[in-house]
Amino acid sequence: MKALYFDGQLTLREVADPQPGPGEALIRVRLAGICGTDRQILKGYSGFRGIPGHEFVGEVVECEEKPWIGKRVVGEINVTCGRCDWCRQGLNRHCAARTVMGIIGRPGAFAEFVTLPVENLREVPPEVPDEEAVFVEPLAAAAEIVEQMPFARGTCVAVLGAGRLGLLVAQVLSQAGAEVTLIGRSGWKLKLAQSWGLNTVTAEIGGAGLAPRSFEVVVEATSSPEGLDEALRLVEPRGVVVMKSTFHEPAHFDTANLVVNEITLLGSRCGNFDVAIDLLRKNAVHVEQMISRVFPLVEGLEAFSYIENEPCLKVLLRND
Amino acid sequence: MKALYFDGQLTLREVADPQPGPGEALIRVRLAGICGTDRQILKGYSGFRGIPGHEFVGEVVECEEKPWIGKRVVGEINVTCGRCDWCRQGLNRHCAARTVMGIIGRPGAFAEFVTLPVENLREVPPEVPDEEAVFVEPLAAAAEIVEQMPFARGTCVAVLGAGRLGLLVAQVLSQAGAEVTLIGRSGWKLKLAQSWGLNTVTAEIGGAGLAPRSFEVVVEATSSPEGLDEALRLVEPRGVVVMKSTFHEPAHFDTANLVVNEITLLGSRCGNFDVAIDLLRKNAVHVEQMISRVFPLVEGLEAFSYIENEPCLKVLLRND
Repeated sequence: MKALYFDGQLTLREVADPQPGPGEALIRVRLAGICGTDRQILKGYSGFRGIPGHEFVGEVVECEEKPWIGKRVVGEINVTCGRCDWCRQGLNRHCAARTVMGIIGRPGAFAEFVTLPVENLREVPPEVPDEEAVFVEPLAAAAEIVEQMPFARGTCVAVLGAGRLGLLVAQVLSQAGAEVTLIGRSGWKLKLAQSWGLNTVTAEIGGAGLAPRSFEVVVEATSSPEGLDEALRLVEPRGVVVMKSTFHEPAHFDTANLVVNEITLLGSRCGNFDVAIDLLRKNAVHVEQMISRVFPLVEGLEAFSYIENEPCLKVLLRND
Repeated sequence: MKALYFDGQLTLREVADPQPGPGEALIRVRLAGICGTDRQILKGYSGFRGIPGHEFVGEVVECEEKPWIGKRVVGEINVTCGRCDWCRQGLNRHCAARTVMGIIGRPGAFAEFVTLPVENLREVPPEVPDEEAVFVEPLAAAAEIVEQMPFARGTCVAVLGAGRLGLLVAQVLSQAGAEVTLIGRSGWKLKLAQSWGLNTVTAEIGGAGLAPRSFEVVVEATSSPEGLDEALRLVEPRGVVVMKSTFHEPAHFDTANLVVNEITLLGSRCGNFDVAIDLLRKNAVHVEQMISRVFPLVEGLEAFSYIENEPCLKVLLRND
């Protein structure tokens, strides 16, 4: 099959078709999304070698459990042992023995086919088209914030960064009852957010536009190491800064600010797919308008070049 | 009066006696403690200029409220407006208009006399000698952790750093029911902790001695920017790292670790003096054995030199 492959450099190549192991399904990928983490992997993040890609929607073509065959599915990306304390607590995303599709030790979805254990699959309801279903993974990651911390109605929240992740987080937290201000640099992204009814502010990181200590919660979704200091500047004493972005580089920040103002910095990663599917089924969030361009899988290298060089939001790969 | 004064360099000098303003008391300092923050101030932390020192016990010598005169007191270091939302919530330590004795905009206790508003004073009970009362401020800061987060009995906690702060934090968290392991490099400090019944481990930061992800909570009390990455290495997924040290330099750390493992990083600063006084009155913590040496105030420069160059714990200045 054709696949994008990273071994220090990203190439399109012909690789052997994957063979599903016991309890696994073979899935034909229909659409896959390129995410900030994929771009970090190309910079060396996680030391991954192989086929990247962890946002996808596809169709089961082979499976021991026959009822799955032909079903349209998305897939939880953490493949876990099922036996450790974390797995038994329902927090298997923290299983120490896990592989993670397209990130740690397991081939990803920038390919014609991918395999996953059946328990990782979630059927996509018919009312959710492929172009929405491909957002389930990042939308679940956005919704994880609400699972980790309770939001009182009217909590004053800033989402810092109006990129793909920020736009999802802002919508999810608004849905959860927070008073959200989305802060970004790019006019057209903020206009899109405004068209969905979100409050927005145009500001540069470190610029003078925003009063310090003016939000109870700040979500750092800039995907840049400089975002953290700005988030710590904007949050009020005893407030919470939620960190969603993963970088390959270490971040540095003013620890005295964190200590003196008794700020909580909360790391937040993958989330529950069922919550995300439910949000899409209820049309509670806008995702399809975030698609900037769809490339055929065989033009995957062009897609990565496009995302690096053009103003855009989500870029997808279609496996025709 | 004689005082230590910092204006880019620390000197002993003769300065005008302080005059208590309305509602303030004039206090003759008896003992003052040198703290990590004082050493950071000498490196430029907080941009402070003036008389440092914020740990003290003294005696009221002048006050409009006559019953205070002659009383032995310690003093809350944050002098606040009393009117803002933070002050009214009882979290006046976060008042944006605050001055902080010896740290921000207010003379400190490395002097013969100091002034503080009467509402900042706490009378020291007779059963608590000066040599213990001088620990009220740092002990309150240690106890702040328990106020910020609940500890289930048996919570597996590491305290990283067996210095002055680490020894106080380890004792307070043990008192609160946690299973504490105190991690340090220095044999004699750990032996002291063992003599109080604490579990200890000798380990270098970044050394191979300790298994990663083995504590539910890690308190970073190393007073060095490298401690944070080590704390993040030792804490389990979804665990809490408490940061107590303030540095002048920014710290850098692996944000991906924080995000992927969904760790909470909690800044923690000053605490409630009444809690600390109560711990001392009940003999629930050992502090006097932490005194390495007492210098007369007029030998304050020697005291700072001693603390930089000798293996020691708490160094005090006595105003005879």
